[in-house]
Amino acid sequence: MEYNKWIADLQAGDEIEGFYLLKSAQIKTTNTGKPFLAGAVGDSSGAVDIKIWDYSGPLGTQDEGTVVKLRGSVSEYRGALQLIISRIRPAQEGDSYSLGDLVPVAPIDASEGWQEFLELVESLQDPDYKAVCETLLEQYGQRFRMLPGGKSMHHSFLNGLLMHTLYMARAAVFLADLYSEVVNRDLLLAGTILHDVAKCREFLTSPLGLVTEYSVPGELLGHLVMGAQAVADAARERGVPEEKSMLLQHMLLSHHGQPEFGAAVPPKCAEAELLSLIDLVDSRMEIYKENMEQLEAGQFSKRVFALDKKIFRHQ
Amino acid sequence: MEYNKWIADLQAGDEIEGFYLLKSAQIKTTNTGKPFLAGAVGDSSGAVDIKIWDYSGPLGTQDEGTVVKLRGSVSEYRGALQLIISRIRPAQEGDSYSLGDLVPVAPIDASEGWQEFLELVESLQDPDYKAVCETLLEQYGQRFRMLPGGKSMHHSFLNGLLMHTLYMARAAVFLADLYSEVVNRDLLLAGTILHDVAKCREFLTSPLGLVTEYSVPGELLGHLVMGAQAVADAARERGVPEEKSMLLQHMLLSHHGQPEFGAAVPPKCAEAELLSLIDLVDSRMEIYKENMEQLEAGQFSKRVFALDKKIFRHQ
Amino acid sequence: MEYNKWIADLQAGDEIEGFYLLKSAQIKTTNTGKPFLAGAVGDSSGAVDIKIWDYSGPLGTQDEGTVVKLRGSVSEYRGALQLIISRIRPAQEGDSYSLGDLVPVAPIDASEGWQEFLELVESLQDPDYKAVCETLLEQYGQRFRMLPGGKSMHHSFLNGLLMHTLYMARAAVFLADLYSEVVNRDLLLAGTILHDVAKCREFLTSPLGLVTEYSVPGELLGHLVMGAQAVADAARERGVPEEKSMLLQHMLLSHHGQPEFGAAVPPKCAEAELLSLIDLVDSRMEIYKENMEQLEAGQFSKRVFALDKKIFRHQ
Amino acid sequence: MEYNKWIADLQAGDEIEGFYLLKSAQIKTTNTGKPFLAGAVGDSSGAVDIKIWDYSGPLGTQDEGTVVKLRGSVSEYRGALQLIISRIRPAQEGDSYSLGDLVPVAPIDASEGWQEFLELVESLQDPDYKAVCETLLEQYGQRFRMLPGGKSMHHSFLNGLLMHTLYMARAAVFLADLYSEVVNRDLLLAGTILHDVAKCREFLTSPLGLVTEYSVPGELLGHLVMGAQAVADAARERGVPEEKSMLLQHMLLSHHGQPEFGAAVPPKCAEAELLSLIDLVDSRMEIYKENMEQLEAGQFSKRVFALDKKIFRHQ
Amino acid sequence: MEYNKWIADLQAGDEIEGFYLLKSAQIKTTNTGKPFLAGAVGDSSGAVDIKIWDYSGPLGTQDEGTVVKLRGSVSEYRGALQLIISRIRPAQEGDSYSLGDLVPVAPIDASEGWQEFLELVESLQDPDYKAVCETLLEQYGQRFRMLPGGKSMHHSFLNGLLMHTLYMARAAVFLADLYSEVVNRDLLLAGTILHDVAKCREFLTSPLGLVTEYSVPGELLGHLVMGAQAVADAARERGVPEEKSMLLQHMLLSHHGQPEFGAAVPPKCAEAELLSLIDLVDSRMEIYKENMEQLEAGQFSKRVFALDKKIFRHQ
Amino acid sequence: MEYNKWIADLQAGDEIEGFYLLKSAQIKTTNTGKPFLAGAVGDSSGAVDIKIWDYSGPLGTQDEGTVVKLRGSVSEYRGALQLIISRIRPAQEGDSYSLGDLVPVAPIDASEGWQEFLELVESLQDPDYKAVCETLLEQYGQRFRMLPGGKSMHHSFLNGLLMHTLYMARAAVFLADLYSEVVNRDLLLAGTILHDVAKCREFLTSPLGLVTEYSVPGELLGHLVMGAQAVADAARERGVPEEKSMLLQHMLLSHHGQPEFGAAVPPKCAEAELLSLIDLVDSRMEIYKENMEQLEAGQFSKRVFALDKKIFRHQ
Repeated sequence: MEYNKWIADLQAGDEIEGFYLLKSAQIKTTNTGKPFLAGAVGDSSGAVDIKIWDYSGPLGTQDEGTVVKLRGSVSEYRGALQLIISRIRPAQEGDSYSLGDLVPVAPIDASEGWQEFLELVESLQDPDYKAVCETLLEQYGQRFRMLPGGKSMHHSFLNGLLMHTLYMARAAVFLADLYSEVVNRDLLLAGTILHDVAKCREFLTSPLGLVTEYSVPGELLGHLVMGAQAVADAARERGVPEEKSMLLQHMLLSHHGQPEFGAAVPPKCAEAELLSLIDLVDSRMEIYKENMEQLEAGQFSKRVFALDKKIFRHQ
Repeated sequence: MEYNKWIADLQAGDEIEGFYLLKSAQIKTTNTGKPFLAGAVGDSSGAVDIKIWDYSGPLGTQDEGTVVKLRGSVSEYRGALQLIISRIRPAQEGDSYSLGDLVPVAPIDASEGWQEFLELVESLQDPDYKAVCETLLEQYGQRFRMLPGGKSMHHSFLNGLLMHTLYMARAAVFLADLYSEVVNRDLLLAGTILHDVAKCREFLTSPLGLVTEYSVPGELLGHLVMGAQAVADAARERGVPEEKSMLLQHMLLSHHGQPEFGAAVPPKCAEAELLSLIDLVDSRMEIYKENMEQLEAGQFSKRVFALDKKIFRHQ
Repeated sequence: MEYNKWIADLQAGDEIEGFYLLKSAQIKTTNTGKPFLAGAVGDSSGAVDIKIWDYSGPLGTQDEGTVVKLRGSVSEYRGALQLIISRIRPAQEGDSYSLGDLVPVAPIDASEGWQEFLELVESLQDPDYKAVCETLLEQYGQRFRMLPGGKSMHHSFLNGLLMHTLYMARAAVFLADLYSEVVNRDLLLAGTILHDVAKCREFLTSPLGLVTEYSVPGELLGHLVMGAQAVADAARERGVPEEKSMLLQHMLLSHHGQPEFGAAVPPKCAEAELLSLIDLVDSRMEIYKENMEQLEAGQFSKRVFALDKKIFRHQ
Repeated sequence: MEYNKWIADLQAGDEIEGFYLLKSAQIKTTNTGKPFLAGAVGDSSGAVDIKIWDYSGPLGTQDEGTVVKLRGSVSEYRGALQLIISRIRPAQEGDSYSLGDLVPVAPIDASEGWQEFLELVESLQDPDYKAVCETLLEQYGQRFRMLPGGKSMHHSFLNGLLMHTLYMARAAVFLADLYSEVVNRDLLLAGTILHDVAKCREFLTSPLGLVTEYSVPGELLGHLVMGAQAVADAARERGVPEEKSMLLQHMLLSHHGQPEFGAAVPPKCAEAELLSLIDLVDSRMEIYKENMEQLEAGQFSKRVFALDKKIFRHQ
Repeated sequence: MEYNKWIADLQAGDEIEGFYLLKSAQIKTTNTGKPFLAGAVGDSSGAVDIKIWDYSGPLGTQDEGTVVKLRGSVSEYRGALQLIISRIRPAQEGDSYSLGDLVPVAPIDASEGWQEFLELVESLQDPDYKAVCETLLEQYGQRFRMLPGGKSMHHSFLNGLLMHTLYMARAAVFLADLYSEVVNRDLLLAGTILHDVAKCREFLTSPLGLVTEYSVPGELLGHLVMGAQAVADAARERGVPEEKSMLLQHMLLSHHGQPEFGAAVPPKCAEAELLSLIDLVDSRMEIYKENMEQLEAGQFSKRVFALDKKIFRHQ
Repeated sequence: MEYNKWIADLQAGDEIEGFYLLKSAQIKTTNTGKPFLAGAVGDSSGAVDIKIWDYSGPLGTQDEGTVVKLRGSVSEYRGALQLIISRIRPAQEGDSYSLGDLVPVAPIDASEGWQEFLELVESLQDPDYKAVCETLLEQYGQRFRMLPGGKSMHHSFLNGLLMHTLYMARAAVFLADLYSEVVNRDLLLAGTILHDVAKCREFLTSPLGLVTEYSVPGELLGHLVMGAQAVADAARERGVPEEKSMLLQHMLLSHHGQPEFGAAVPPKCAEAELLSLIDLVDSRMEIYKENMEQLEAGQFSKRVFALDKKIFRHQ
């Protein structure tokens, strides 16, 4: 009996026990009319199909996305492994397991990252932009820190939005200095910090924090417009001058670069233009990274959906 | 000496006096170094170039878009008429002239139109949508009633926005009834009433009320986003439930139909889809009307910029 | 034994008898070499897979799309229901069943709709446009009345083309009045009445009247060009002046609005422009309706193919 | 006094007399109120501005596009030549001049070309396709032989449509042989012969035969649809089987290759696909030729409008 | 026992022996833990699934794409045929079978085609263009002669590139003569001969010569750029003047016609323009041919991926 | 008499003498037949029209783009200034003037910039990438250092290409560090250094070094392909391994990001993707800078051609 063995390491014949994420679960009926549960469990290393024979509950579809403790044996079925479960129960308070083992988590030290992020906010010289950032982080901070960057395209792991925003902020600080003649550092940095903050309202998340779906306001308004409204409200509350509020709203509304990519308005000042490019840089570099991890040197990928092309991992 | 003769009726040799709109005015210098004013005056029938010899002020560029009283004689220069002005002064309080003779005005009875418009608001059964409409009309009503629908594409005359919205509202009421199985009449009608209300902030206007330019918030935020924010604020103030506020915001944000035509989000409910189509119907019919007035039966127009094609006036 | 039980109401264990539509039928061979028939039957409420063991005919692929009388029992196989048939025969003259129970039919009273449609034709004041409409309805009327509006996108049920055309005609009458300064009511209405009439030649239909495929002339010429030719021929036969014939042909040739959506020429007069927009309005409202019927309030659909987006059903 | 001197050879100081094409003519008034005529005359070598002082008619705008006999002297005005005319009259019956000297004419022997064209029609083995070609050439032949291929893009000279069709037919015959496994020679050749025949109705022409404008049916129906209708009518008259008529109509309807380039339907058989490509080949080669004649070896052109790029003339 | 029976002719119950292409092969395990091989074999007429029970080698995935000798019996499984193999071994030296029976081969006499191709090279009058062609054929000739034209779109059979190039060269010679005023025959012909020569480096091929994948340089540089570099190197080696080298490189770089279709630069001389069109003509005619072979007269195809439309086979 | 007065400071009545750039010059004839020269002179502050009366040479069109010494007086003509020149001669050896006063020069210290650039090359750790950079800088270095970045879009001043490349290299070094998990610093930096090096062959320049036109190889091959060939040749000469040569070529070939923006192949490795984005960042920031210098705070620009939108200069 092996304890919390990685899914990726399972082999036919293994007897295992431990905590796993219940990814899907459906009560079905055999040809002979007996109930059973079919579904899948996973950890951050992968996933495996499960069966629980003669089982009609209490676990079922309503528990997808939660942690379970299980015992079972691994066999092979039609060329793939499956896990036949003999005991299963929901995780309870007091159980001891590591969330980071069960769901994908950003490859950064989240505490340090969050600290650096707060220092970047602190570094804003302009009291108005700083005030808006502070107000919005008070509202959204805790969710913002944990949220993935998206559902599947890139950064779709816990702390993903923090990681994405942090890398962009580092680039923003550097490029604001390189192009200081046209770029106001504080406007660029504040825009970068807040550009995706309304994803906190745009996404629905599973119990463990992964993005499962878009919310109704996410679909009807979008995170660009919701972000701009949040900026407008915060600016009003903090007494920020109208032009600064408008510029910061413009940063958020235009950060997808072009209307056909979702921008509510095209970027019309240098900081907005640069923010949209930094967003492209960071998301593309992460897409390359996530896809290149699957490749060996000298090999091309299959067509990467988010880039609409194959990519190459050189030596 | 003819008084307030229509510009369109001027002929070489005419001596005229009256009130006209000073459309452009620039102080220049002749080859021999003498100052003169070159520019144009107009009324709702057309425009004509002017010259004032030996003139260095007080009228000049700063007075473009205002009404002047003038006296002058009409001659021909290089195949076109021009008006040589002998006396000119700004219109003053107490002068008696009709604004409608000087600038283009919508071909509707504006009072009746406004009355009908208020009755349409009144006809809303849903107290929430009605409350938002009332609040925004309190804020923007007077400007909304006078504003042109745009700078040059269509409805670019006084009361143009009222006329455009009124025609759309009539169509909305009819189509809400025809498609009552999928369309909530009050959501569609409220969305129609408010869809362009933020043009009141998007446009800058001349002293006589014509659109001269986009405002800074108009360029940076656009009337779709500003309208949605105004709805959000009014809804909050009036205690409107969140979902209704969101739906009404969605109507405004999506009314350009597609991102490449300026929609911040694509329409995702039947009312939003229909609003975007009614907007197309009314603007295209008006473009046809304004262009067909220039044509004789059996004739094709030149390429119409707003439609990117030639149009035909049949018998 | 239940008689003509709705497919949607079947449960494992049911014994049924009645008339159903044979949707597909294929003679196959078991591993042990015995012939059997596998396929599906349906009614307007849904469809279910069938098996007839030890069966090699006479029914088979050639009977798809016809009505059969059958007796059988319902069981469950791999999580879905299937109907094991013990007796089956083609429907015969004298059998009594309702077509409307077996295939989807437009949710309108077809007789009243047809009556209203004929009155709309009758309402045409212009004798030339009226003559062309009458001639084409003589040729195509019976097929036109029954034909679906299409294969699967929208209105794909019996009387669908009539319903689509009728709703458009109602909108046309209203909008011709609203925009009477630019729109000739009779040209718009005649164009609306005839715009899809050549779908009668474009579609192939099953024995029960549903669209199965495009015809060869449908693929090579399309219903726009075929419709225009039919108008040209009818106009010549009825002595209609050339310009009117041409205008009516132009209405049909341009009613898809833009070349990339299939228009042979872009609309160049106000009536043609408006017809293309009314077509958009009615088809989109029907797509919303058909898709929203599958949704609960507060829910988003999956991506709707015909709209290329998800849609929302609000409260 | 030089007689019929080429416009391209004129120099300041020349005294000339002869027949020229009156390209434009407008009666104007000098500053001192005297009437004069300003316009331009041309021959196939070029054009020059004209002035006729103290002239109020009878020649004027209504005579544009006709031939005049004139006498005048050449001078320079603002860096360009102009011709001051002392005598002018319309050309009369009995005057002797060569049309080919006055308007651009295709660089082919038109009689031989026409003969070859008729032989190509004669070479059709399929009696049905041949019958349709014969019928349409009876209707349109004389105009077809003289008509330019277009207004300005390419082949915009007399006999231009014949030349374009003839070159395409030569290519069609060759390629039908090369791809005889997929291409029916007679269908391809008949489609090629007829593809632009309805330009005879699409274009309006000046008295000398150049294209001045599109006709009303040209704008509302287009030469593709008009050509297909002419084929349909001819086929019916000559008893051609329906499928052949349909295929030939399809050739004409699809010969612009793609809807966005004006095709009413996309090509769906090999002959239609090939016809659209042969049309591209011949029109592009002629555009290169007409533009390269303006260039010296080793030189790039300005941006060529019809190709949207610069082209190169190599050694 | 039938020998080398065509796959397309197999029927349940056949006992066969012969040489076939091993298209895929994978060692798997039954539910009871026994090894077996599942895969497919094919010849130029088609392919069939195979099973080898109780088999763990030596044949396996590493032998895909090679020829095997096998004996087996045909049965039906889930409605499709499968071949249960009792004996199998790799083809050996000395075995006698025809490659053309096992893999698709161009429907031309490859020796005659190659001879004609060499004569076309020989026909070049310009010693410089000829020298470059000769040099590149020395380098790539043998591979060029055998290589398919592509992986799956068209000409994806042995000698396919030769066939494609040969047909294009025939068209080039004819069209160079037809448009001799703008086209240099030798530049066009040399460009045609060499346009795809670098596909020899762009493609990876299976042991039997079919294209399996793009090479790394094929993906990173593409055959247009690699071809141009090969021309540049050959021209330098053979002392060809710079302008001629450049023109020939331009032919190769631009032969996809437009940047969005892969051209590195757009065609800017008449020969380059014509080459890109000839390439379109030949590839489209071949796509029609390959797809029409699957159709009966009067029938439409399914959507053809390479053309994005359905095509028609007429009588 | 003022010496070398800035063109931007001229006023009617000024008498000036000094060195200026002859921007255009054309010998013309007055109405009375006398020769004169019309053209323009400029310095880095602007340009002014010139006239030289009674002048037929020796200066003329052939001297455009060279420096002249002139004396003249400033007057006003039709509302604009013009300079009537009384004496003019070409600049000679020994004349003393500053080139930087006459043509626009990059706002960097070119010596320091060049030094920094060389140090960046020196910083390459990879001996192969370094070798290729060194070889190409030996070939192109002197021209590269002086060349503008383009003709008019951005960086169209002396040392513009150096400035553009230098800023990009700074960003490349920073971002290679930020994304070190996916980016090879030396490949990115070498690609950045060389990405536009072939503009040295693509542009033709005036005597003073400004870009006047594209060269023939520039038009037929483009700087992407020429750069890749130069890399291939240098790599072969320096014994660089094939894969590294190929990767570096790929960087150059793909640096326009997408085929429709001129990329010969799309970027397929992380370094190529990043290079194309850094190029976008630097060119857009410079476009903003050059356009914002024309604006006052709070003002929008006219539509900027290179961005296809208006831009805003905020406080």
